[in-house]
Amino acid sequence: MKVQLVSLAAILSLASYSADAKEFILTDVEKGLAKGDWSISSEDLGVKEHNFTIKNTVLKGGKQDGSELLTIASDNLTIKLSPTRGLGILSVDGDGLRLGWDSPVDEVVNPKYINLESRGGLGWLDGFNELMVRCGFEWTGHAVQADGMIYTLHGRAQNTPVSKLIVNVLDKAPYTITVKGLIKENTFKKSNLETWVSLSYVPGSKDFIVHDVVTNKGDYTRDYQIIYHSNYGTPILEEGARFVAPIKEISPFNDYAKNGLKTWQTYLGPTKDFDEMVFNVYPYADDQGQTQVMVTNRAGDKGAGISFNTNQLPVFTLWKNTDTLKQGYVTGLEPGTSFAYPVTIEREQKRVRQLEPGQSAEFTLVYSLLSDKKAVEQYEAQIKSIQGDKETKVVEQPIAKE
Amino acid sequence: MKVQLVSLAAILSLASYSADAKEFILTDVEKGLAKGDWSISSEDLGVKEHNFTIKNTVLKGGKQDGSELLTIASDNLTIKLSPTRGLGILSVDGDGLRLGWDSPVDEVVNPKYINLESRGGLGWLDGFNELMVRCGFEWTGHAVQADGMIYTLHGRAQNTPVSKLIVNVLDKAPYTITVKGLIKENTFKKSNLETWVSLSYVPGSKDFIVHDVVTNKGDYTRDYQIIYHSNYGTPILEEGARFVAPIKEISPFNDYAKNGLKTWQTYLGPTKDFDEMVFNVYPYADDQGQTQVMVTNRAGDKGAGISFNTNQLPVFTLWKNTDTLKQGYVTGLEPGTSFAYPVTIEREQKRVRQLEPGQSAEFTLVYSLLSDKKAVEQYEAQIKSIQGDKETKVVEQPIAKE
Amino acid sequence: MKVQLVSLAAILSLASYSADAKEFILTDVEKGLAKGDWSISSEDLGVKEHNFTIKNTVLKGGKQDGSELLTIASDNLTIKLSPTRGLGILSVDGDGLRLGWDSPVDEVVNPKYINLESRGGLGWLDGFNELMVRCGFEWTGHAVQADGMIYTLHGRAQNTPVSKLIVNVLDKAPYTITVKGLIKENTFKKSNLETWVSLSYVPGSKDFIVHDVVTNKGDYTRDYQIIYHSNYGTPILEEGARFVAPIKEISPFNDYAKNGLKTWQTYLGPTKDFDEMVFNVYPYADDQGQTQVMVTNRAGDKGAGISFNTNQLPVFTLWKNTDTLKQGYVTGLEPGTSFAYPVTIEREQKRVRQLEPGQSAEFTLVYSLLSDKKAVEQYEAQIKSIQGDKETKVVEQPIAKE
Repeated sequence: MKVQLVSLAAILSLASYSADAKEFILTDVEKGLAKGDWSISSEDLGVKEHNFTIKNTVLKGGKQDGSELLTIASDNLTIKLSPTRGLGILSVDGDGLRLGWDSPVDEVVNPKYINLESRGGLGWLDGFNELMVRCGFEWTGHAVQADGMIYTLHGRAQNTPVSKLIVNVLDKAPYTITVKGLIKENTFKKSNLETWVSLSYVPGSKDFIVHDVVTNKGDYTRDYQIIYHSNYGTPILEEGARFVAPIKEISPFNDYAKNGLKTWQTYLGPTKDFDEMVFNVYPYADDQGQTQVMVTNRAGDKGAGISFNTNQLPVFTLWKNTDTLKQGYVTGLEPGTSFAYPVTIEREQKRVRQLEPGQSAEFTLVYSLLSDKKAVEQYEAQIKSIQGDKETKVVEQPIAKE
Repeated sequence: MKVQLVSLAAILSLASYSADAKEFILTDVEKGLAKGDWSISSEDLGVKEHNFTIKNTVLKGGKQDGSELLTIASDNLTIKLSPTRGLGILSVDGDGLRLGWDSPVDEVVNPKYINLESRGGLGWLDGFNELMVRCGFEWTGHAVQADGMIYTLHGRAQNTPVSKLIVNVLDKAPYTITVKGLIKENTFKKSNLETWVSLSYVPGSKDFIVHDVVTNKGDYTRDYQIIYHSNYGTPILEEGARFVAPIKEISPFNDYAKNGLKTWQTYLGPTKDFDEMVFNVYPYADDQGQTQVMVTNRAGDKGAGISFNTNQLPVFTLWKNTDTLKQGYVTGLEPGTSFAYPVTIEREQKRVRQLEPGQSAEFTLVYSLLSDKKAVEQYEAQIKSIQGDKETKVVEQPIAKE
Repeated sequence: MKVQLVSLAAILSLASYSADAKEFILTDVEKGLAKGDWSISSEDLGVKEHNFTIKNTVLKGGKQDGSELLTIASDNLTIKLSPTRGLGILSVDGDGLRLGWDSPVDEVVNPKYINLESRGGLGWLDGFNELMVRCGFEWTGHAVQADGMIYTLHGRAQNTPVSKLIVNVLDKAPYTITVKGLIKENTFKKSNLETWVSLSYVPGSKDFIVHDVVTNKGDYTRDYQIIYHSNYGTPILEEGARFVAPIKEISPFNDYAKNGLKTWQTYLGPTKDFDEMVFNVYPYADDQGQTQVMVTNRAGDKGAGISFNTNQLPVFTLWKNTDTLKQGYVTGLEPGTSFAYPVTIEREQKRVRQLEPGQSAEFTLVYSLLSDKKAVEQYEAQIKSIQGDKETKVVEQPIAKE
């Protein structure tokens, strides 16, 4: 069976800007501008083929005081992002299906109330509740003390308010909506990574595109790492839910995960004391490096997929956190340049990439909402096609020890 | 002499809500609501028997930028609370008598400008100036490094802005005013304690009630600790002021406090180089566990009392910080579940309590302003009645060493 | 040649307040007041001899959200300060000459987004981009772990929003404009230093005066340290630019700086891998302790000078950070009470000063924009006059080892 993978070129043409677009600058530090509460609708834009609104709201109260929430609400999908939290994706809803999960952290926590160094470098956990979190870019992975500092859990990007925020809507079909933000990781003498992160959505579709460009603005070669920590809970995740991916090699993250080496393809229901089981995966890809992974419910009629390119994101972490519902019942599908080991291990094992002065790296991921049996089957067939009859090597021992 | 202790049932009936009440939601994170500047008066509410205003103000400037100050001003008492600082009680004034103290920290410091980890876990000291601070609930006590993290001094509750803030006024006598806030200590994988804290005040009275309910919202049994750090300076505290409590056992917190074992009942005036002297107390209580403690000035015509239940709060810390006026001349009367030792010691010595999943614990304290000789005498008589002729055991050595 | 040094008395008379002045209180925590966006002009004030505006703006977006920017724009100089960042001086422009530099940190970062403890105590680098930063007052210098805490790089003053902000304009000639802010370093039991910092500017001139008074508000003797970290990049700094000062003794800060002991008078152009070279300087001064230092471009027609008093500020750090333009091409001229060693070394070597209870220390510095050859020559001549024919002792070895 010949499967038509989404063409990267097509994706990028959707995501890129056009002269035929209306652009709205919501935040621009250079102009001292931040519109805060703002909205625009398809009607305002004279679009008749689709019905959508794009709305930015400044949240109030508690630890979310001052956090911005940007919502794209359309006939098909409702997408929620937080500009204040690195333009992370809070949740996506469509066809009665929710992409996202329920964290005990139930506010959009403003980074001003987060101390990434707390709990020995685990302060990131005080804000973690998103569907998609960028773990990077100066470093990522588990917290570790090294070089006289704490490399805090999963880096700083997610707890950095964007310095620029732009909404762009094509003014002709397909009326692509793009939300774009600039994350600056700038520290004198230490870091000068600037990343344009974006989400693009074509009204009427059930996919959305994440397209990020990280640039080393400095004069020295710098390390970077990124993990796209993409998290799904109910209703997709349930007992008997399945993880499907074209896998070249899989290994347990640590000794605990050795117990799950025979059952990594399926999920348990909410399970007390399960905590988390993590697997390191090297995926297969097609000739262009394109690959995709998915999680589907047991019945195979609700799922979520992520398509990405292994030239950009060569490794993949499968995070099975099928603990209780209140503890956070969630699985992470995490394409990355690195596994989730501390940066010290990632350096040793040569997975930390570098950017030369002025150099950029880009990452494109297509996230799909699979809301019926047919969509799930088709997505799975594409994955099987990439796997073909190639073998999956199961490595019994962890490749590193924290 | 038969003494009438305040009945806990009566207290709770005052503190609880009623259908016959007007409720004002000032902050609600679920609705993205935070009214900020707001006020209401007895006149607005059609109350004729009393004259009061309840006012919420957003402070500005310096380290208090964005901190909320909620003031209940009535004919008898003026009560100041800070919703941004865990609804701590800043001060209470009535009959020309002030409950509270003068800290060198003279702003209502917004937690966004506080780093609890600074000074080796003493960042809490950058904001400490309240009449009553909740030290808890995930942990409390002196800072300590353990379990790969810093348990920072006295926990996080006081530096957590409330996620919900409700003002409730009974619309018939006794027109009880209740201010209620929700403190969330939610961290993915680590903590899921949510605490409704409240202060209730009956116009015309000179008491106010603190009633808190901490709930373990998670699926795992969790530790909790609480110390109600209640702090009094001038004019009550002075040379010859007295601490009065029904005491079963008292011991010095550390070697330094051994020097004060004979004089713990009285206070020095402001004393250079005194620093702080701390005593661990197990109080006596009546059959229902109800007890009370007080501090009174030398003349016995100005005092402050706290009534609490030893089933809820079995231990008590006496903190004598009779240092100079500018350094902070203050005594802490601190009912708690724990002493002020680091959590590591409190765990060892079995004073750390636990909440099962979904379980709550509640704490009710009645704070009294004793503004004349008669009030002081009566309060003291009640304490003596609890002590009766039972002995006070003085333990010469500290029960633990930090 | 007899050189007329700026008289300290004359300076202070300019900086001090007058009954004949209009005063505008922009921020006052005691009144809960913070005007935020605000401006006034010479026209508003009925001043006809000069044309100026003073404007306060609340910045928005990214990490500068809520930071205030106060700009004095006049015919001669445009001076930018940030009240939210300790009233640090961002930049000064006049006659087409910029005093300041280009840091990779290109926002006025609100301290709420800075964690001074991060990177092992180097969080200060996340905000550093000013022309003049106060490093102090509780401590300064390189980060060090001691006394159970991290003394973070260069102290806390610069990341403290001012608690009071006052603009004062003389209502007769010379119409001196003074901006004054109060920095509180108040921590219960630990610190009670309050510093009135100010900048005064006489319209029409090319100098401005920094006049600070730090007071120990507590009852105990306290250490203090201050370094006026004054930073210049292009166009003054360039290959062949010169540092000129009357020097009694100079020594390398560390082994790396030993390589620059013969060439400390001149600067390299932007130089990859140069990093920073630091020298400790004891300046000569006149009979009153008055001295001055400068940096000038190669042609000697663009320069910047600082005049200060060695009784107040006895030591001086020369920071040559002639790394690449993007990395931060900058030199620091840093009068201080201390060198930039960690406080532990500064204590050992007796450079940490103390304030008795209630005692104040004051510091007056005159910053000059030298925008033509004549101004540069004249300033240099004054320096030479102070040096006279006195020798400069070059110490070959660092006086301390970090």
